[in-house]
Amino acid sequence: MLRSRSLDALAGCELYFKAENLQRAGAFKFRGAANAVFSLTPEQAARGVVTQSSGNHGAAVALACRLRGIPCTVVVPHSAPRIKREAIARNGARIVDCEVGQSARDEATRAVLDDTGGELVHPFNDARVIAGQGTATLELLGQVERRARARAGDGDEPRPVLDLVLAPLSGGGLMSGTALAAHGIDPRIRALAAEPEGACDGHDSLKSGTRITGRSANTISDGLRAELGPLTFAILREHCEDVLLASDAETVAAMRLLWERLKLVVEPSGAVPLAALLRQRERFAGLRVGIILSGGNVDLDALPGLLALAP
Amino acid sequence: MLRSRSLDALAGCELYFKAENLQRAGAFKFRGAANAVFSLTPEQAARGVVTQSSGNHGAAVALACRLRGIPCTVVVPHSAPRIKREAIARNGARIVDCEVGQSARDEATRAVLDDTGGELVHPFNDARVIAGQGTATLELLGQVERRARARAGDGDEPRPVLDLVLAPLSGGGLMSGTALAAHGIDPRIRALAAEPEGACDGHDSLKSGTRITGRSANTISDGLRAELGPLTFAILREHCEDVLLASDAETVAAMRLLWERLKLVVEPSGAVPLAALLRQRERFAGLRVGIILSGGNVDLDALPGLLALAP
Repeated sequence: MLRSRSLDALAGCELYFKAENLQRAGAFKFRGAANAVFSLTPEQAARGVVTQSSGNHGAAVALACRLRGIPCTVVVPHSAPRIKREAIARNGARIVDCEVGQSARDEATRAVLDDTGGELVHPFNDARVIAGQGTATLELLGQVERRARARAGDGDEPRPVLDLVLAPLSGGGLMSGTALAAHGIDPRIRALAAEPEGACDGHDSLKSGTRITGRSANTISDGLRAELGPLTFAILREHCEDVLLASDAETVAAMRLLWERLKLVVEPSGAVPLAALLRQRERFAGLRVGIILSGGNVDLDALPGLLALAP
Repeated sequence: MLRSRSLDALAGCELYFKAENLQRAGAFKFRGAANAVFSLTPEQAARGVVTQSSGNHGAAVALACRLRGIPCTVVVPHSAPRIKREAIARNGARIVDCEVGQSARDEATRAVLDDTGGELVHPFNDARVIAGQGTATLELLGQVERRARARAGDGDEPRPVLDLVLAPLSGGGLMSGTALAAHGIDPRIRALAAEPEGACDGHDSLKSGTRITGRSANTISDGLRAELGPLTFAILREHCEDVLLASDAETVAAMRLLWERLKLVVEPSGAVPLAALLRQRERFAGLRVGIILSGGNVDLDALPGLLALAP
């Protein structure tokens, strides 16, 4: 958990950053992957694991399978960044290429499952994965609480540890885990999501009460292009208060701030919550806000082009 | 302290990184600055502090003075990066511009000292500053030891905590503190420095036994352009085993690795030790090496140009 005085001043509130870019494999995804892979029975494990991913989840599942010593196949769309593709290969998984888009991914995944008889570890629509992702928020709340206790002594604290937690929204695995963990610890902690304007199907789904599918995403945040699944949609309808939006230019400006002020390499997807919060400063003024910096897997070759989006 | 399995594999040894880019003001310099500024008598403090710096030391002294509530003047060469200049100004210090080069810096500093009657906190040729910088290594050794104990139990360990520590060399403040701290804890810990080829006056001084001054530096590592002072030269002659060299292209390649694998924003100066170590892999094979990542204050606008140096 990291803090920054200058970012607090800029945002007008207290920010508590959970640095999941420092997590193994460079993103929160290892939490859910490890929970799913290590909870398989020996019989399931022997047939291997199959997943689909544009990157971080694939690398995380590949790593978890390598650690358990079982086979792993990852279905990867052509559009996935080089660095994420390499991270999957480095962990010894088999890569199966597919076309861009959810239906192409699903089809390719089904073919591999039929072929191998393996266990699907879906990137978000899976209770084991959601539970794993929630541990980032559990840790964050514990870290903030210990820090507050060390400063204030053992007096009773009438406020919750944080006023709200904010995480990026894609398929909803991280956000579902975040909201469930926060509300499990203290129902007064508000759980909000942040989404790119160019991939705001989650926002529109929760506002309309109907799960929207089949849209094509248009955002630089390559980790936030998935759409909600039935399970995550149901959880978020109950536990997610609102979905904030940010443009790609705002996201790059926020990413720059995180690099400059926290000295952390955070990928665009991980900067969307800060970007969305900065857009609505007055709404969050004075609050204690936990932010999940979801990952740090940026392709440095693509960086000059990214930075040019918010000069 | 951070570790990376993939960097260990690449280097062929065990690397223990002290992330001074996460230090206040973004570099180790705050350690020495705070030690010097807070050890002033009230009478000295009232007259204010004067220093010279191309960046990180200036921002660190400015911050320490702001925290103590005393005036601060920083002499800054025209060539200093924008981000470092802004960090000095943000902490409320007065900036006095000077020409590039040690003699121009010294002259401008002397003029301000005469004018204000303030206390000089030299960036490296100052025992208070050297002692402060050494605390990075004290902490690193403590962190590595606690980690080793937690893994091995309480058995007697015949080897030192680390086989060697490696830090960048410029004026020698960090390197002197690093070497003194290491040898104070355990004289068997080897202390080595790393320097850019284009600013290898420290290397040549220690090899020849004569302190070399008056050269002009030619390196992208803007924090490593100073030359040794009489005090740091004397300490390093006794405590620094060797000075390793790295080219600017090697430094950028190492910086890239640190960004990609550790997810930390490290400035070129901070990547020189890893670059120098990777050049001589066989020499350090299998050793446990502490590396001080000295700072993270990179001008992101200059980044595309930097990355192009090691494509």
